[in-house]
Order: sequence, then structure tokens, then C-alpha cells
Amino acid sequence: MKIIVQKYGGTSVGTPERIIAVAGRIKSYVQKGNSVVVVVSAMGKTTDHLIDLAKQIAKSPSPREMDMLLSTGEQVSIALLAMALHDKGVDAISYTGSQVRVMTDGNFSEAKIESIATDRIMKSLEEGKVVIVAGFQGIDDEENITTLGRGGSDTTAVALAAVLKTRDCEIYTDVDGVFTADPRVVPNAKKLKEISYDEMLELARLGAGVLHSRSVEFAKKYNIKITVRSSFNYEEGTIVMPKEEMMEKFVVSGVTAKTDEAKITIWNLEDRPGIAAKLFGRMGEAKIYINMIVQSTGHDGKASISFTVLKKDLAKAMELAEKLKNELGGSAVESKENIAIVSAVGVGMLSSYGVAGRMFKVLADSNINIEMISTSEIGISCCIDGKFAELAQRVIHQEFVESAA
Amino acid sequence: MKIIVQKYGGTSVGTPERIIAVAGRIKSYVQKGNSVVVVVSAMGKTTDHLIDLAKQIAKSPSPREMDMLLSTGEQVSIALLAMALHDKGVDAISYTGSQVRVMTDGNFSEAKIESIATDRIMKSLEEGKVVIVAGFQGIDDEENITTLGRGGSDTTAVALAAVLKTRDCEIYTDVDGVFTADPRVVPNAKKLKEISYDEMLELARLGAGVLHSRSVEFAKKYNIKITVRSSFNYEEGTIVMPKEEMMEKFVVSGVTAKTDEAKITIWNLEDRPGIAAKLFGRMGEAKIYINMIVQSTGHDGKASISFTVLKKDLAKAMELAEKLKNELGGSAVESKENIAIVSAVGVGMLSSYGVAGRMFKVLADSNINIEMISTSEIGISCCIDGKFAELAQRVIHQEFVESAA
Repeated sequence: MKIIVQKYGGTSVGTPERIIAVAGRIKSYVQKGNSVVVVVSAMGKTTDHLIDLAKQIAKSPSPREMDMLLSTGEQVSIALLAMALHDKGVDAISYTGSQVRVMTDGNFSEAKIESIATDRIMKSLEEGKVVIVAGFQGIDDEENITTLGRGGSDTTAVALAAVLKTRDCEIYTDVDGVFTADPRVVPNAKKLKEISYDEMLELARLGAGVLHSRSVEFAKKYNIKITVRSSFNYEEGTIVMPKEEMMEKFVVSGVTAKTDEAKITIWNLEDRPGIAAKLFGRMGEAKIYINMIVQSTGHDGKASISFTVLKKDLAKAMELAEKLKNELGGSAVESKENIAIVSAVGVGMLSSYGVAGRMFKVLADSNINIEMISTSEIGISCCIDGKFAELAQRVIHQEFVESAA
Repeated sequence: MKIIVQKYGGTSVGTPERIIAVAGRIKSYVQKGNSVVVVVSAMGKTTDHLIDLAKQIAKSPSPREMDMLLSTGEQVSIALLAMALHDKGVDAISYTGSQVRVMTDGNFSEAKIESIATDRIMKSLEEGKVVIVAGFQGIDDEENITTLGRGGSDTTAVALAAVLKTRDCEIYTDVDGVFTADPRVVPNAKKLKEISYDEMLELARLGAGVLHSRSVEFAKKYNIKITVRSSFNYEEGTIVMPKEEMMEKFVVSGVTAKTDEAKITIWNLEDRPGIAAKLFGRMGEAKIYINMIVQSTGHDGKASISFTVLKKDLAKAMELAEKLKNELGGSAVESKENIAIVSAVGVGMLSSYGVAGRMFKVLADSNINIEMISTSEIGISCCIDGKFAELAQRVIHQEFVESAA
């Protein structure tokens, strides 16, 4: 019995017609002799609609009740998909997270899966049924309903593949796979056949959010191959897999830009140990997410620190930065909203020299000034003026992806 | 700790504003020191909307998946009501049928409650919380989600009162209570202060459907007083109670008309034993619900049988009647759609003579011909031409209710 886990996102099941189309696709897998486990998200805008209802009722709804509310969205989808399969003569049964014991911690709205019972799923599969599991939801050890956060259905699917001991997990979405860049910005962007877990995580972190990060971490841990593909056609998609198994490793497999961050600079702090620790410790306590950090030391024993925060946190972060400037003896605080963080990601960087240098050069050749730089094992990010975001992506893509092809 | 069970119907929680209003009402009970358990239905037209979705997907959706689908409606309501209570500073927690172990048989879409666990509810009440339970739903012993059929939330409420050992169960709806007749037809209809279980059941059977019959049967069995009242005002409502405890017993407490039935007559069947048994046995096998039956014997050893069926079953019933006429040697089959069954119901009939005679007389005085008659211990029903339905209710109400007052 070959088990395949398939996950269909909200757009893929957005209307009754689309649910019927998904049922048709599942049927074709069943007819090929596969045992199919399906995870579905809530239909289209259902979750947004439910959140809106809650906001009409209470200013800050309790997380437990919010999860009670939101989990209904997936429950609707699983029932409808089961009906659609029955209507096509395919035996199928739907289960809520509770019914198949998707056990999570008690962290409402951001719960983490701890275990999933397989007995009921395996029994239904052995009876020849397609098993449909509600994504995004679980229960804690007191049977309170929990949810896994936005994109959590991806994690449900990968976790199911793990406990069912199959490596085949297909994530159906509304794009054809993972691209080397956003095709709306870089017309020559091409779909990747394969990508490694680490590249996928780095891309997600840097703004190319095809998959929920936690699902990729799970896949990496349990060695599951995730195929990202479209539910609207039969294109092959992109396989997210261990880099050791990849046929081709590109120096750069993806170029991204994030434009949802802003830069803050605190000028002329005293340059003594512990300043950065104090600054970012306090930011952390205020739950402000920090991405890039650059510290520059001047010749007068003063240091300036620049860092980026999410634009939505900018006001809060500026208020705190002003306070910290006074405490830490800085001279001024400045912010800049119109920035972009452009990045190149690729496992090939591990074994290639000069990638950073080439990237700085293509940016310089286009007269794009680099304001901050950060690097990871498989990625290089540059903070630049926001107006150059699209140009920067195109020239980096040209240099590393198109010229390499 | 005085426990009150309150049930709010779909209209009462139809919009966010109404849910907030219901929360305000519950708060007033909490402030008086009561422990409140609340059962809610799905918001307004949610159930109809979900049924419509299912119909767009499959011609005959599986009952298990239908219950999976429909049970989400109540889950949305309980979460929103909990949020509304929190927003008013009232501690509250919501539970699905599954979470408080509303155990039912496995008869999807018409399941019967077998037991409810009280430990979790009692613990939350002891913690000072309002406990909100999803009506209409339960689970079978394999944890499949089941529903109790239309109006099933009433039954959930009464069953909860039974297991929590309280006699106080309030059913909030969009009418002020139980009336002696439909006020739209009989302007002098008045609200009853009290009514017995048996009268309530008889009224429900005869077309005045304020409460789900099974909830009344449950209340009778467990000696629970149900107060039927409006959630839109503070009127006192009607108490459904044991007749022994009633202060006043009217000869007739309610006048009803059913216009959803049609009459079928099979003429000149052979008058021998077993004919009726065969006829109605076959109708029963075809799942055709029969209400009134009249058999008349002619002088030539032939019998004619008239009976009423639901209009929606008429075509199927006529087809079968035609077949049976041939098998049983009848001469003709005839149907009449435009009929009404008017009834008078009251426990006082048990100790009053001549009620039937008075009823026939007021109909005759209005030139209304009676086509069929049936009686029960506390009710008399007459089948008449449909065009007299309203007139008949008015004159019967005039005779028994208005003149008696």
C-alpha cells in the first residue's frame, strides 16, 4: 500500500466547483492504486470572514475561543470534499483534528503538533477509503481545540506523512511551484525542479512564502519530499528535498525582496560591551522582531547601530529606540521606511567563492547603493533604497540564474 | 449553586448584535447568583446555507458528512457567545458536543441522546464560568459527529437540565410563548401561562411547532419545567410542566390547523379483515407518513378508506395507492390536496363531556363540512376543505377559549 499525502489550500477548495475538481484529481490517484490521505484548508476567504465576525463581537477575543471558531472552516471543507468524492463513486471519510488525535501543545493560535494517532487513519485506508483530515487544527491534552497558525495545514500534511511513514507529500496551491524569483518582477524567472529544505526555509524567511516554515522544518527532520504544485493544472511542480538527493545544485536558486521592513539607526552610542545586548534585549522583550543588524564603529569611540524591524512595528520600535538612545547615551535616532532587502539564496554558495562580491558588483554597476549587508551559510542579503527593489532583483537574477543557465 | 439551563435559538443569535444582547441577558442571570449553562443554535440561516453548499456538491450527501458539515454552525455560535461574554467581563467557556460527551446513537441526522458527561461542565461551573454548549450535536461511540435533527438544540438543553439535576430550563425563541392559536389567524389568541407536556406534544403533532417534540418527551420523562419565552423582551413566557402542578386547566388550551397534508380515498375495497393492515403496512414500508384514517363500510360489503399524507409524499402515495387498489380490488382512487386539519387540544377534555359535539356544532353553524374526524385523549381533529381553515380556527377558538375566559 503506497500512501500519498496531499494538501489542498484554500484557493484550491474555494468554491463548490473547485472542490469537485479536487475530488476528480484525487480519484485519478486512487485509480492508480495509491492510498490517499488528503489535508484541506478552509474554503477561500472563510477564515478571514470568521475573524471579521469575531471582531464585531469583541475587541480582543480569547485565543481559546478564536481557535474554537476558526477550526470550523476546515471542518466544512473536509465534509464537502468527502461528499464530492462519494458523488464520484470514491469511498472517503473525513476526520477533524480531534478525531484523529492531532495532539498539540496548549498554545492557542500558534500550537505545535506533538503527535498524531495513526490507528484510525490506517484502518480507513485499509478499508479502501480516501482519508480526509482537517488541516490547521488539533487538540491539547484537555481536548481543547487548537490551531497551528496561518499556513498550518502545510504542517498538518507533512506531519501526517511523517507518522504514516511515507516520503510523498504533495502541497497543492495556486502557483506552479517554487520560482527562481517572483515572475511578476523578473519575467525570466523559472520554475525550479528541486530545492533543498534549507534553501526553502531561507526563501520563506526572506519573503518568498510558498510554504509554511514549520512544515519545511518538519519535512527536513523526517526526510519527507514535499512536492509544491498547482491544483489548476498538471505541471510537475517543485520538489523540496534533502540537498544530498538533488540532481542539480545551483549557486543561486532564488532571488527575493522583502519590502515590509523599515530601518532604524541610533547614532553615536558609546562603544562599550553590552550596548547591543541591552538594545536588542529590550526590543525582544517588547516583542519587536529584528531582522538585519549592522554596527559601525567610528574613530571617536562611538558606535552607530542600524537594524530593520517590520513596518507594522515601526512606531513602537521608534518610541523604544528614543528611550534607549537616552539611556545609552546616543546622539540621535533616525528611521527610513522606504527600504528593500534583496537576497540571493542557494546551497551552491557553500562551495562557491566570490558570490557576495559578484552580487555587490552587479548592484554597484546599476548605481544601487548598499546600506546594510548580512549573510548566512546559503544566503546574502542587502538592504537598499526601496525604489531599487525591482531593478536589484532583475540584475541579481540576470547575473546568477540566467547567465548560469 | 442554582443551575439554570438556557437555550437560545438561531434567530436569537442571528447577528453579532443579537449575540451581544444575549450575552447581556445571560450576565443579568449570573449577577443574580445563578450558575448558567447555555445551549445555542447556529446563527440564523447558517444551517440552510450549509445545506445549500452540500447540494451544490452532491445530489445525496452522506448523512455522516452532512452531520460533520452542519455541526460547524453551532460551533461558530458557541465561540462567538463566549467572546461576547468575556467582553462583558463574564467568565465563560464553550464546549462542542464532543467535548462534553453528548453521546448519541449512530443514527446520523436524527440521532438520539443517550448520555451526557457532567464532570467537565460541573468543574467549569464551580470555577464560576458560564458554560456554553453547542446544541443539536453529539458523537456516537466511535466519535463520529452526529446531529439530532431540526430543533435538536431544544433537546440538548432539556437533556442537560436532566443530567445536571435542575428543573429550570428556559428556551428562548422569537415568540413570546405558547399561544392558544396562531395570532396571525386568530387575533384574540392569548398567551398561555402554563401548558402540560401532553398538550404541548399534541400541539406539536398537530402543527403548532414551538418546541421540538423530543425535547418535550424528555422534559416529561425527567420532570423538567421548560419556560418558552422571547429573547427580544422580558415577558414571562409559557411554562411547560406536569399537568398535576398546573394552576389552571383549560378544556381547550390550543387550536391549530395543518395545511401540509392531502387526502387520498380508495373506493369500494372488499370489506374483509387485513385490508387496512396490508394497505398501511405497504405505505409504511414506502416511508409514507399517514396521519388521519377513516374507514367507512357500505351496505354492499364494500369499504372505502380515506387517509391523509404529507403533500410532499402525495405523488408517491398515489402511485402506491393505485397499485394497491388493483391488488385489493378497489374501484377507484381519488385525492384532494386542498384540505386542512383543524384541531382543538386540551387536558380539560379528559374531564369534560361534549367537547367533540360542541366542536362539530360550531363548524356546522358556519356551514363547514367535516370530511374526516379523529380523536385522541386530549385532542379532536377534523379534516375540512382547505378554504375554511382560517374560519374554522376562529370559530373553534371563539367557542372554547374566548367564551370560556
